[in-house]
Amino acid sequence: MAEAEPALTKGQRTREEILRIAQDLTSEIGLEAVTIGDLATRAGMSKSGLYAHFDSKEALQCAILDAAAERFTNVVLRPAFVAPRGLPRIERLFSQWIEWEDVEYPGGCPLIAAATEFDDRTGPVHDRIQKYIDLMIEVATKAADFAVEEGHFAADLDTRQYAYECWGILLAHQTFHRLLDATDAAALAQRAFDSLTARSLPQGTTTPSR
Amino acid sequence: MAEAEPALTKGQRTREEILRIAQDLTSEIGLEAVTIGDLATRAGMSKSGLYAHFDSKEALQCAILDAAAERFTNVVLRPAFVAPRGLPRIERLFSQWIEWEDVEYPGGCPLIAAATEFDDRTGPVHDRIQKYIDLMIEVATKAADFAVEEGHFAADLDTRQYAYECWGILLAHQTFHRLLDATDAAALAQRAFDSLTARSLPQGTTTPSR
Repeated sequence: MAEAEPALTKGQRTREEILRIAQDLTSEIGLEAVTIGDLATRAGMSKSGLYAHFDSKEALQCAILDAAAERFTNVVLRPAFVAPRGLPRIERLFSQWIEWEDVEYPGGCPLIAAATEFDDRTGPVHDRIQKYIDLMIEVATKAADFAVEEGHFAADLDTRQYAYECWGILLAHQTFHRLLDATDAAALAQRAFDSLTARSLPQGTTTPSR
Repeated sequence: MAEAEPALTKGQRTREEILRIAQDLTSEIGLEAVTIGDLATRAGMSKSGLYAHFDSKEALQCAILDAAAERFTNVVLRPAFVAPRGLPRIERLFSQWIEWEDVEYPGGCPLIAAATEFDDRTGPVHDRIQKYIDLMIEVATKAADFAVEEGHFAADLDTRQYAYECWGILLAHQTFHRLLDATDAAALAQRAFDSLTARSLPQGTTTPSR
């Protein structure tokens, strides 16, 4: 029997609730625009009450990123890792990822929002974002490596190139879906992904073998 | 003989100088983080002096976007439109675009930075960004349409899909180059673009005809 998770203290529950609201705000307006004041208002708390949980804006920003990364693990990675290694897992990963961008947050992935803001800065918040985006791309690379091992993808596939192109498809989906309100955003993303799969198959293969 | 451009007044020159600094700031920290106060400090002006040029933060944000879009026209579109219609123009467009992201600004394309921040907001700044990003994608679509007309690309190419994939390649380059400091970012982008070109050629063709 799995060990029961220890119950959260009241302070931990409050902290989680604040971070849930803060992630939504980040998703909508970006990480830098989330102020302790705004967040206190939305959470129905005093600013000093909020400072009891996060001593600085930087500590809050890092906690928001950690919470978003944990949610990414639960919403995207866990369900994908139930699928068998190789192409089935990659396909599951892609569909969960699109769903993550579409429905998980009111304004799209908070990590991607933060990435554009902080890419040229230095310091702990930048380093945190860099680490998480690097991990996300590593997930795509490793998933493609497994597909090569399973014989679903060509033995000589450049899996870093694969991950680069997959990342581009996901980012473009965010532009078309969120900014341009394009009704064909999901179809464009799916066709691009299917084309990427087709050209990753072993030579001479036109339909995936799983 | 071309008509000489009218000389700028002192006020216009100051405004241009402010907008040049403001674009660099947007590129580095995002549009929302650029305050009239910061900008006044960087431009060596008083806040009231700056308000003489832009009555509100929103007016300033719109002016920054307009200035960046004008610069995009000069740096990316003008040089590309010198190349012959079809594949040569698309290739020029792509290389100018990568250069735009690499060297034109200290922190990458300010329009893309603003797009992620404002995609879920409403109002004139959001509408401005939406218009410019839509135009950028339209440029890629039209360039592909011309390549189809010239017989460089397959007659049945889905040029909207082409533009979507091209946009993804450019966005992924920004992540790999700016956030991850990947030394192979340009090579990854080029290989992805070459692969997109190869699969856009008329059926049975493996090398471009121009």
